[in-house]
Amino acid sequence: MERTLITHTPDKVEHKVKISGWVWTRRDHGKIVFLDVSDRSGILQVVCQGGLAEGLKPQDVVSVEGIVAARPEKLVNRDLPTGAVELQAEKIEVLAKAQELPIDMGVEKLELQLPTLLDNRALTLRHPKVKQIFKVQEAIMEGFRRAAQKLECTEVFVPTISYSSTEGGAEVFKVDYYGHQAFMTQSPQLYKQIMVPVFERVYLVSHAYRSEPSITTRHLSESIQMDCELGFVGFEELLDAVEFIGRETLTYTSQECREILESYGVEAPKIGSKVPRLKMREVQEIVAKRLGRKPSNDPDLTPEDEREICAWALEEHKSDFVTVTHYPTKKRAFYSKPDPEDPEYSLSYDLLYRGVEVLSGSQRVDDYEELSKIIKERGMNPDDFEMYLQAFKYGMPPHGGFSFGLERMTMKTLNLANIREASLFPRDMERIDIRLSKKDAI
Amino acid sequence: MERTLITHTPDKVEHKVKISGWVWTRRDHGKIVFLDVSDRSGILQVVCQGGLAEGLKPQDVVSVEGIVAARPEKLVNRDLPTGAVELQAEKIEVLAKAQELPIDMGVEKLELQLPTLLDNRALTLRHPKVKQIFKVQEAIMEGFRRAAQKLECTEVFVPTISYSSTEGGAEVFKVDYYGHQAFMTQSPQLYKQIMVPVFERVYLVSHAYRSEPSITTRHLSESIQMDCELGFVGFEELLDAVEFIGRETLTYTSQECREILESYGVEAPKIGSKVPRLKMREVQEIVAKRLGRKPSNDPDLTPEDEREICAWALEEHKSDFVTVTHYPTKKRAFYSKPDPEDPEYSLSYDLLYRGVEVLSGSQRVDDYEELSKIIKERGMNPDDFEMYLQAFKYGMPPHGGFSFGLERMTMKTLNLANIREASLFPRDMERIDIRLSKKDAI
Repeated sequence: MERTLITHTPDKVEHKVKISGWVWTRRDHGKIVFLDVSDRSGILQVVCQGGLAEGLKPQDVVSVEGIVAARPEKLVNRDLPTGAVELQAEKIEVLAKAQELPIDMGVEKLELQLPTLLDNRALTLRHPKVKQIFKVQEAIMEGFRRAAQKLECTEVFVPTISYSSTEGGAEVFKVDYYGHQAFMTQSPQLYKQIMVPVFERVYLVSHAYRSEPSITTRHLSESIQMDCELGFVGFEELLDAVEFIGRETLTYTSQECREILESYGVEAPKIGSKVPRLKMREVQEIVAKRLGRKPSNDPDLTPEDEREICAWALEEHKSDFVTVTHYPTKKRAFYSKPDPEDPEYSLSYDLLYRGVEVLSGSQRVDDYEELSKIIKERGMNPDDFEMYLQAFKYGMPPHGGFSFGLERMTMKTLNLANIREASLFPRDMERIDIRLSKKDAI
Repeated sequence: MERTLITHTPDKVEHKVKISGWVWTRRDHGKIVFLDVSDRSGILQVVCQGGLAEGLKPQDVVSVEGIVAARPEKLVNRDLPTGAVELQAEKIEVLAKAQELPIDMGVEKLELQLPTLLDNRALTLRHPKVKQIFKVQEAIMEGFRRAAQKLECTEVFVPTISYSSTEGGAEVFKVDYYGHQAFMTQSPQLYKQIMVPVFERVYLVSHAYRSEPSITTRHLSESIQMDCELGFVGFEELLDAVEFIGRETLTYTSQECREILESYGVEAPKIGSKVPRLKMREVQEIVAKRLGRKPSNDPDLTPEDEREICAWALEEHKSDFVTVTHYPTKKRAFYSKPDPEDPEYSLSYDLLYRGVEVLSGSQRVDDYEELSKIIKERGMNPDDFEMYLQAFKYGMPPHGGFSFGLERMTMKTLNLANIREASLFPRDMERIDIRLSKKDAI
């Protein structure tokens, strides 16, 4: 018998159908057992009599044949698309038995400590509230791609094994590459710049690897980045592009995931046609004023600054975004262009979203000689950047770009407490699926 | 002055515009110099008088202001969308000078040895014939995503740093992960299977790493894979899904890239509603008959077998695809399900396209006990697969999937001689952008 998707059962009242899915919950009422069975399309109440449900437990995989019946009016569950019907089981085939579950999956929300959530990831991902996170993530990605395509960017695919570390620094994973030392890229930065003279505007999705020596709620050792790089643009156009893509991405996500946002009790992102733009030093002043202290002279924003200026943007501009520009040149990667009017600061920007930076970018250094000089000044070897510099030797226009962090966008859209919840299989210094403390060191 | 994209210049005859782009070619006719200038939208003839073009060379980046003029009827270039107009330059600003080019980029086709093509990759990618390859690649990816979405797959994002090697064997890149040994995944296989009980049907794009110790025309050390995994499907439905996605992907690509295929002199892929399906042993028999020799008893198809059966499929079935099933169980990865009717062979399949395997997949082993036993029998440690096995402990339905190689699909669609031409920055044992022979070993 052909399988019917659960979402189609309300159209098949009084017909015999076969559904396939997972036993989600079981309720025993004397001789009658009610099962909730779910598949990719929905969840359905199955009524079992005469011992048909014997031994069935949550997460067992079953095929159920039976007659779709309309429920009596007063038993209709209006919260459920299939709530007006139920399946009266005639035959149940067990396709796979589940072992005793280590956690109760039948609760409305898994109230687990993060380590337990992750230790049991292959199971906990199945919980509706958890899998919703990744439907939002899917929508963010699709929204990003559509927005980048509207900007006429070509999608490109670049490698992650590289000869040089993208940004210098020690936080790189090393790979033994046929007896040569190589690195996992910290970002696709150098490659997307090389692509500017090819397609002028490119976008790409890539993995970024950072050997972060610390544990925070907003860093991962491997994360997904959504990047754009645009040629023949100035600083203001870059900021426009950043805000355009951010707005389009989250508008698409809100539309696609309205019910999920509601079930999470979070509001749709507020991003008006004007996103407030501030220089980093202005942010420090505003934050100081709000907190009644002297302005900080730090070379970067603190997490508190980021939260506070986002609170300000929401109060003063009804905006969940705020764009911060002009970070100190020394604090940014070597390819960020110093502001010609004040080279101590760079034509760089971060996009903050609900208290956290979700995007970083800049106008780039585009002159070959200047770039070679900066690489040397930063203590790196231009030979390690041979292919990258080649692009600048042969005609590189003014350009710039930016990079969104997929997990951070997901995390803040759903107001999750920890970025690990927004990654299917998060990587950090303590875990590769299982806890590293359980394993021998090299 | 606002920039006008070159493609819009035919609508601006007798208007003053500014274009920005790269000098592509320069032709001196006495006091008049003709430049071809290109941007992401097209290429345009620029007429320069009075020394305006002095010193300008190919790959220089310029902005040109001038009047768009209709060309006299007999000088219209009908091969070019902008061929009815030209720009009479009044002012040229040089945004970036290119150094002397190491190769002539003005030819219709770069006739370079592969090492030269790749040594100068940041430059050679700009050549129209080269960049067209990556427009085809972009279309293949978009076509794949649309097809996977039609099959109701959810897009997921999985990590590439893993604790176990996906398929056993020695061909894995090792990473030092905070003092622990980790691997770059040979495929996203284990993770996509874990996702079946979450979304039932998933698709993903990932990087696959293979420390291939050999140099061939069809292997890369890092490549892009397009994967699907489907729950509640049997073998025939999997073959249907493979062929559906393959057909949809290439149909989309042919439509989007018709002009590129024409300029490459290749035919659009022929994929009818029925793709021939053969068991591996049947392929060996057909090939033996065609070549007038005894059937091979090899446990796998040779490259010659693959080419020959594709020639057969094209002759006999007018099909650029042929699906080959039932490879010996021992030759396939541990997660491939043995055929219950003849366990020496597996419910596995490859999709061959114009002489090369571009997809591999199988029905999977779905029983926890059986899978644990197979892992042990293959000399691997089930502890290394703890998270993967967890998915099978708690209710795993029958499932299967497949994986397309993006570069191979691109290569065969354009009839390229070497897979390296179908990768922006190909990785192999001899090269990470620059030749490794130029670098010290670890």
